[in-house]
Amino acid sequence: MRNLNQDNITQAVIASFAGTTDPRLKEIMTKLVQHLHAFAREVRLTEEEWFKGIEFLTGCGRITDDKRQEFILLSDVLGLSMLTVAMNNDRPAGCTEATVFGPFHVAGAPRYELGADIANGAKGTPCLVRGTVRGIDGEPVPGAELDVWQSDEDGLYDVQHEGLAEAQARGVLTADGEGRFHFRSIVAVPYAIPHDGPVGAMLDATGRHPWRPAHLHFMVTAPGYETLITHVFRNESDYLDSDAVFGVRQSLVCDWVRQPDGSYLLDYDFVLKPSSASAA
Amino acid sequence: MRNLNQDNITQAVIASFAGTTDPRLKEIMTKLVQHLHAFAREVRLTEEEWFKGIEFLTGCGRITDDKRQEFILLSDVLGLSMLTVAMNNDRPAGCTEATVFGPFHVAGAPRYELGADIANGAKGTPCLVRGTVRGIDGEPVPGAELDVWQSDEDGLYDVQHEGLAEAQARGVLTADGEGRFHFRSIVAVPYAIPHDGPVGAMLDATGRHPWRPAHLHFMVTAPGYETLITHVFRNESDYLDSDAVFGVRQSLVCDWVRQPDGSYLLDYDFVLKPSSASAA
Repeated sequence: MRNLNQDNITQAVIASFAGTTDPRLKEIMTKLVQHLHAFAREVRLTEEEWFKGIEFLTGCGRITDDKRQEFILLSDVLGLSMLTVAMNNDRPAGCTEATVFGPFHVAGAPRYELGADIANGAKGTPCLVRGTVRGIDGEPVPGAELDVWQSDEDGLYDVQHEGLAEAQARGVLTADGEGRFHFRSIVAVPYAIPHDGPVGAMLDATGRHPWRPAHLHFMVTAPGYETLITHVFRNESDYLDSDAVFGVRQSLVCDWVRQPDGSYLLDYDFVLKPSSASAA
Repeated sequence: MRNLNQDNITQAVIASFAGTTDPRLKEIMTKLVQHLHAFAREVRLTEEEWFKGIEFLTGCGRITDDKRQEFILLSDVLGLSMLTVAMNNDRPAGCTEATVFGPFHVAGAPRYELGADIANGAKGTPCLVRGTVRGIDGEPVPGAELDVWQSDEDGLYDVQHEGLAEAQARGVLTADGEGRFHFRSIVAVPYAIPHDGPVGAMLDATGRHPWRPAHLHFMVTAPGYETLITHVFRNESDYLDSDAVFGVRQSLVCDWVRQPDGSYLLDYDFVLKPSSASAA
């Protein structure tokens, strides 16, 4: 393994993984190196460009903390997140479609009773959200857990506000015995993904905008069903056709209906895939 | 751009770069996305594996600071660094070959007079290093600058020692009017690259060792010549055939000769490529 050159180095690196005991890890490392090297070879990456790449990743690391996840953002804007979601969420027709997780979920969000206002002070136009969680055969899913999160009217999630004492516009609810849920929050608005870091600079340099169409995040879990991670999008929103993270699915776009008092109503039912069901 | 699936998302992401004004950046982003997506598609990356990848990069970011560069280490152990060096340093026969830069160079290292001991207290067996810097036609390169760095006897660079007040075993020297240089340092020994972080865990999981054969780093610069970044390896070292970063070139391996007093002598001449010369 001396005198490796641009033609034989890829095989040498792959050979170095010969002792990998986990066959899946071996496969992933092998393909990763093949594609990483093929990329560098195809563009004939210069040393200066290589170093810019190192600096880019270093910058992503520097800005990432427990409230900011630049690597997920990067994966999102490169379409890798949505590709991964698409490959792993091939559900039978009739099931609610999945979309990207995004970087703003917080584990252990506060639990609320049905009917509560999860906005908890977040700025925005009031909105009542209600619906039912069902299985593919129409059966209600009693006790389904709904983890919900969204930005406020300024387009910021609670974790993006400095020094907020409590979670806002996020919470966990449990559907009733017939799979029904309802809660109060605020109307979703379009927002720009955090673009004051390396990913923002990359969007800038490639002439892309950082906006996402208005949406409300849901993670719906229930024993015996596959976890559903998705959004509900707002039909009248801008950017439905140019989502910075490529996450829009038409089946997830719906009307958020303005009520006489100025508040909004969102009716949306979720359909889960049983854990054992195969894709259609 | 709604309802993107695993078949059409790659084209949609590439299309999003249509507004990139820099054609080279557009090419790089396009190929990056093609290969990144092809990798994910070929291994059918699961969501759990995707998240492990995010955690891996996040861990690399967390451990990286002004003295530790996990992203360069990652590039090194995946052979990307050496591939990039190989593609960009196609020099005429007779020129000294280049190898990887590594993560331990420090800009602005102390300047020394010829003959000085750059070890500056670093632990190790004394070694005299001397040679001449020439151009490809044999002409001496007066005033060539040599930036030199190496680990100590324990296999650690100065920046890996906590709280060291001064640089050790690194320095910048200027060749004399006939391109000659000489300085004192210590004998290089094999060392393990930092492996207490994510890259080390990856090496572990793939059955790879973290060792590099004994070497001394040089960056040689002179007006009118291409900068040469290279090592001189020690012939009797272990790991010459299994360098963790794939950097060994036979032409850079030479005898470090033991002297009667127990010290060592390394004679090595560098041959630079004129800036305007084309590759052979």
